[in-house]
Amino acid sequence: MSLCKILVAQGGGPTAVINQSLVGVVLEARRQHQVGLVYGARHGVRGIINEDFVDLTQETSHNLELVAQTPSSALGSTRDKPDAAYCHKIFKVLQAHGITHFFYIGGNDSSDTVRIVSEEAAAASYPLRCIHIPKTIDNDLVGNDHTPGFPSAARFVAQAFAGANLDNAALPGVYVGVVMGRHAGFLTAASALGKKFPDDGPHLIYLPERVFDLQQFLADVKATYERFGRCVIAVSEGIHDASGQPIAAQLARDLERDDHGNVQLSGNGALADLLCEEIKDKLGIKRVRGDTFGYLQRSFIGCVSDVDQREAREVGEKAVQFAFNAGRDGSVAIKRSGYYSVDYELLPLTAVAGKTRVMEDEFIAASGTDVTDAFRLYLRPLLGSGLPDAFRLRPNPVAKVLNPE
Amino acid sequence: MSLCKILVAQGGGPTAVINQSLVGVVLEARRQHQVGLVYGARHGVRGIINEDFVDLTQETSHNLELVAQTPSSALGSTRDKPDAAYCHKIFKVLQAHGITHFFYIGGNDSSDTVRIVSEEAAAASYPLRCIHIPKTIDNDLVGNDHTPGFPSAARFVAQAFAGANLDNAALPGVYVGVVMGRHAGFLTAASALGKKFPDDGPHLIYLPERVFDLQQFLADVKATYERFGRCVIAVSEGIHDASGQPIAAQLARDLERDDHGNVQLSGNGALADLLCEEIKDKLGIKRVRGDTFGYLQRSFIGCVSDVDQREAREVGEKAVQFAFNAGRDGSVAIKRSGYYSVDYELLPLTAVAGKTRVMEDEFIAASGTDVTDAFRLYLRPLLGSGLPDAFRLRPNPVAKVLNPE
Repeated sequence: MSLCKILVAQGGGPTAVINQSLVGVVLEARRQHQVGLVYGARHGVRGIINEDFVDLTQETSHNLELVAQTPSSALGSTRDKPDAAYCHKIFKVLQAHGITHFFYIGGNDSSDTVRIVSEEAAAASYPLRCIHIPKTIDNDLVGNDHTPGFPSAARFVAQAFAGANLDNAALPGVYVGVVMGRHAGFLTAASALGKKFPDDGPHLIYLPERVFDLQQFLADVKATYERFGRCVIAVSEGIHDASGQPIAAQLARDLERDDHGNVQLSGNGALADLLCEEIKDKLGIKRVRGDTFGYLQRSFIGCVSDVDQREAREVGEKAVQFAFNAGRDGSVAIKRSGYYSVDYELLPLTAVAGKTRVMEDEFIAASGTDVTDAFRLYLRPLLGSGLPDAFRLRPNPVAKVLNPE
Repeated sequence: MSLCKILVAQGGGPTAVINQSLVGVVLEARRQHQVGLVYGARHGVRGIINEDFVDLTQETSHNLELVAQTPSSALGSTRDKPDAAYCHKIFKVLQAHGITHFFYIGGNDSSDTVRIVSEEAAAASYPLRCIHIPKTIDNDLVGNDHTPGFPSAARFVAQAFAGANLDNAALPGVYVGVVMGRHAGFLTAASALGKKFPDDGPHLIYLPERVFDLQQFLADVKATYERFGRCVIAVSEGIHDASGQPIAAQLARDLERDDHGNVQLSGNGALADLLCEEIKDKLGIKRVRGDTFGYLQRSFIGCVSDVDQREAREVGEKAVQFAFNAGRDGSVAIKRSGYYSVDYELLPLTAVAGKTRVMEDEFIAASGTDVTDAFRLYLRPLLGSGLPDAFRLRPNPVAKVLNPE
């Protein structure tokens, strides 16, 4: 019996736990008797067409466990989205190296890559098992309760807003925090989990699932500021006007687009700065501060959900088990089975590939600027254990002497 | 014997551990037999002139311990810097309430406030013990080995750059991270502690202690990018040209100044965005991303140095002990006594007030864009225990088949 040859790669934006999935694949594959070699492609599909492979069979289990704990993509990643010609090159390389199983860890663009490669192999009658392993901080893969990487990024956002709220309470003013998420507002909505006391921020949350209107925004901020003497705001980078034009894109001097035709929304502070300027100019509030969470929210080392780590590891392991037992290609999906427990399924690639999930209506409050309890119930277990908590002094006012009230 | 009446307040920018100092004062003061009441002023000196006091004698020790673990200023803060007239109002309120001991937790502006109030009381022959308790993420107080708040902010910056470096290695390009610190580069320099492997970033560090030259900056970035195929850069918000003009201020449309006459450098992403645009335009590098760490670096909940927590608590406790035993006003200072151990001193207020420490030359590499081992030795113990570590896959390249090298 000739031994199988595994290839694993990582695509798209890194997450805090994508290496858990990588290590899940490698350790589970090395455990299979029919597996001879486990290769990793450096920098995703680009590494495949360049034959830029490393032999993961030679890596120690001990170092693999340490790499699993390390954020970002240990094999490197890519933003390339293969078309038919690109996939043909992939196919030729896989054939030349005798690869029998291809695992690609990534988001919906990556799942589409796996679909194309799978179809290419089938059309050429080349026996190749193709499995997509979910990963995205945006939580926008269909067919999944949630996606690995999202819980840890959500935890960062919740902790960031919990802290920003405390800072804003000490030095009152308006604070705008811009969060990643082009089409899906899940990560921005996670800011709501940073709230504890009734008057805590974020007081307003703007999601890409709702049309953003600058005048309404200013009215919301004004009302909140008048009520609390301060205002903490969570804004998705993907907010857009009624025509679908991103607010951020309206401001950018040069529209940078990636290979998928997407406008570059992250990596600059333009949206936060514009919104702050509008608030200063139109509402006359002096202390207005804006932060763009940028790459910190997906790359910060030392803010991870243990639930996310565990599930990211398991989707990697399950991918290998499905590859050898399910008899078909597919995309591994997380299903919620209890509160809180999960199980894993293998979905057809066509059910996931290239599709985008957005926040369900039941998760968004009628106001359009808050989340519902259903969302809090959904997200809380994903954030994991040991979430920091904020405490306050209780009010014990002292009577005034010089100016008694 | 009439019982003493304590007043404690927090000024300036919040930190992750400023409530440790507050709780150190309160618990130690409540332990003293001669103390009757412990008041807190809400929002610093502004709360004093408004007689906005809370009675901390009524707070539970249990809740105080939980508040101590919570970042930001639990009493609220202010940016007010009292002049003689303002201090006179403070004095009148302290007199009216029979305050005998005044503790103010803050940076060099706050220490100057304590100095003025102390002199005002002495001139009026009013018996008032005034103690300044150090706090600043900028680490720019003279007479201190370091200041409470700095180690936790430094830990955030080190962890942020460790993660940004991993992200940048996965998707290579140029990354610019802008760090707080108007005059002192300590916090920006802390980014160097995020490095582990020889080719890790930050590859370039720009401090306010050195003149920033845009052409030299671009040459540095170009050389690094050519060497490593990527470049991670740490930049202080306080970088300035040879005339002392801040690079950030050159860009800001409206120069917002606080009551101390300082230009507002934080709270927008302008500096990062300008530097990124320059790199794109002049060096023709496509993937250039900038983040401004903003308020996250001082307010993030869940990233704290245990060493910082301990010392912040102790400076509060020591302040009370000095107040009752030293027989003079002053500013509590941290002295390094071993590697690593500290002791505390009471410095004269005039030795600290209004002065600014910057990074010592021995901490800055000759290149001007890196730190020295002396700085690494200085900073490492302050970051505390449990610092996350990054691991890599070892290179085990697979021979190419289609295009053998």
